[in-house]
Amino acid sequence: MTSQARAYATQSSETPFAPFSFDRRDVGPKDVSIEILFCGVCHSDLHTARSEWGGTLYPCVPGHEIVGRVTAVGAEVTRFAVGDIAGVGCMVDSCRHCPSCEAGEEQYCETTGFVGTYGGVDPILGGPSFGGYSDHIVVTEDFVLKIRHDMADLAAVAPLLCAGITTYSPLHHWNTGPGKKVGVVGLGGLGHMGVKIAAAMGAHVVAFTTSPAKREDALRLGAHEVVVSRDAAEMNAHVNSFDFILNTVAAPHDLDAFTRLLKRDGTMTLVGVPGTPHPSPSVANLIFRRRAIAGSLIGGIAETQEMLDFCHEHNLTADIELIPIQYIDKAYDRMVGSDVKYRFVIDMASLKG
Amino acid sequence: MTSQARAYATQSSETPFAPFSFDRRDVGPKDVSIEILFCGVCHSDLHTARSEWGGTLYPCVPGHEIVGRVTAVGAEVTRFAVGDIAGVGCMVDSCRHCPSCEAGEEQYCETTGFVGTYGGVDPILGGPSFGGYSDHIVVTEDFVLKIRHDMADLAAVAPLLCAGITTYSPLHHWNTGPGKKVGVVGLGGLGHMGVKIAAAMGAHVVAFTTSPAKREDALRLGAHEVVVSRDAAEMNAHVNSFDFILNTVAAPHDLDAFTRLLKRDGTMTLVGVPGTPHPSPSVANLIFRRRAIAGSLIGGIAETQEMLDFCHEHNLTADIELIPIQYIDKAYDRMVGSDVKYRFVIDMASLKG
Repeated sequence: MTSQARAYATQSSETPFAPFSFDRRDVGPKDVSIEILFCGVCHSDLHTARSEWGGTLYPCVPGHEIVGRVTAVGAEVTRFAVGDIAGVGCMVDSCRHCPSCEAGEEQYCETTGFVGTYGGVDPILGGPSFGGYSDHIVVTEDFVLKIRHDMADLAAVAPLLCAGITTYSPLHHWNTGPGKKVGVVGLGGLGHMGVKIAAAMGAHVVAFTTSPAKREDALRLGAHEVVVSRDAAEMNAHVNSFDFILNTVAAPHDLDAFTRLLKRDGTMTLVGVPGTPHPSPSVANLIFRRRAIAGSLIGGIAETQEMLDFCHEHNLTADIELIPIQYIDKAYDRMVGSDVKYRFVIDMASLKG
Repeated sequence: MTSQARAYATQSSETPFAPFSFDRRDVGPKDVSIEILFCGVCHSDLHTARSEWGGTLYPCVPGHEIVGRVTAVGAEVTRFAVGDIAGVGCMVDSCRHCPSCEAGEEQYCETTGFVGTYGGVDPILGGPSFGGYSDHIVVTEDFVLKIRHDMADLAAVAPLLCAGITTYSPLHHWNTGPGKKVGVVGLGGLGHMGVKIAAAMGAHVVAFTTSPAKREDALRLGAHEVVVSRDAAEMNAHVNSFDFILNTVAAPHDLDAFTRLLKRDGTMTLVGVPGTPHPSPSVANLIFRRRAIAGSLIGGIAETQEMLDFCHEHNLTADIELIPIQYIDKAYDRMVGSDVKYRFVIDMASLKG
């Protein structure tokens, strides 16, 4: 027995969002059913809905920054009860048995790959998995997160499920903390969370932006210093000084401008895949300080819970603009123009309107 | 009071090597004077002598893989005595006070940069520093290495001072050892030492070569497997399996072909600076396994001693072709054609001929 979900979907890369109904699977013994209250709007939603990466399965119901209320649990569920506030991020399942899954790094699942919250292949019903631009979702307990923030903060918690973990995981993995100088490149949905989290971890945080207008805002978010990356003198003042740089900019750009700011043994980690390649980075820049360029993908489920608890403890949420689902096409257009501070979140109550 | 040294030098990027005399500095209280017995021939010698990197100071006396006999020591020298066998590598001094020097990573000296054995600026006499294509050298004790190998092996020990440490240092830094699967890309002067050292460290070693003809030789050097990198099927068999890849190939090539062979959290470290950039590496390849591309430069003095002792303990030396100094131009031409197994070493007795 399935349950009908109300949602918004695109039917092709060219068509706007429109109301759509589909069946969610029945609540199995290990499943949790969640009434979706808020869903953040990630750049990946836009790329997928518009098939900018190719291969999108339609109908497409994006959304992987989900916060809601538990409405039903299966007989074997132990960690959630009806009425709990819960979250779902980018993954709803994985193989569970490969070395990465066993290490709690399900995002790197080595056999099937993780099951995407949307745009993957639903492992039970088949067809495309449908995400959070919908009224409810059914997810196996192991991929559901506990939300401890106050009810009043839930809309601003939603972006933690992707933007939060995508920045927390590399900052944590590369040992950001007191005594470390950390750069965050780009002040968008990811970058603004990177600044907040790195600062809460106790690092000395330098925000890099191309836009002098964002200087005050970066300081408000928690940056100790702000560097306008187009200002050569400002950049030169930081040569050889960073332990770690989190680069959230997916647009092709000169990586050397930032690797040269790393000290010996420093790493710059990229979390965005550029549409066309970055200019090839200088190998000499790496060799002469034993620097590294790395990549990082979201984070594991246990680490996502750790991130949510960390953000609760440090009173961190995203800076958001709350929108009704009917505004989603316009929101995408504004995201293309970087016109959002710093994340759109859909109030799913609007779906009932 | 200085001492006159006999050497071979180039006077411009266009001229062949010819006999040349110059003054070595007097043996100061902390100095060691070494009669050079053997000097390895590194690709950097060729690039510098022919000014392929630009900026070469002439006259140019290359050579930074030096093994010889101590002939004089200053009054404050404690670790060397006349008659000892000693080595000198790529560095003859550094600032000694910056964080990298204090960490024993003089190759990353952050103030003056290290003083190159050749082609740097001599900190005492001024003018270009003159390297090992000469009959003797005077070096401050702190930059002189102890050689414990048998006298019969000394010619084959010389390449350890650059090719050995350049491969040992990253293999050691990235924790190569038992249980680790390690790739070595390229089977030249560096790569052949990388294979020997990684195998001696206890790793499972896979040698990558473009030349099927080197398969047997790679196995003889200690590789457990050999992959012809132009063979797609052979390459695909190793996807997602390496802990670490040491890439010794400086010629521009497709890095993605190797990064995709790294497992989660694996690193590929480059030790050669390409003349023109490599094709820009895939960021997705890094992100989807949290892989890294890094660089590494020779190694510190203490680590160089550790490497020499390790090679002595494991009975490792380079595979060499011994040549007289008069053959050096021809040797360079053969190196350009990769016609050497695997390192030319100059018998400096030929200088007296």
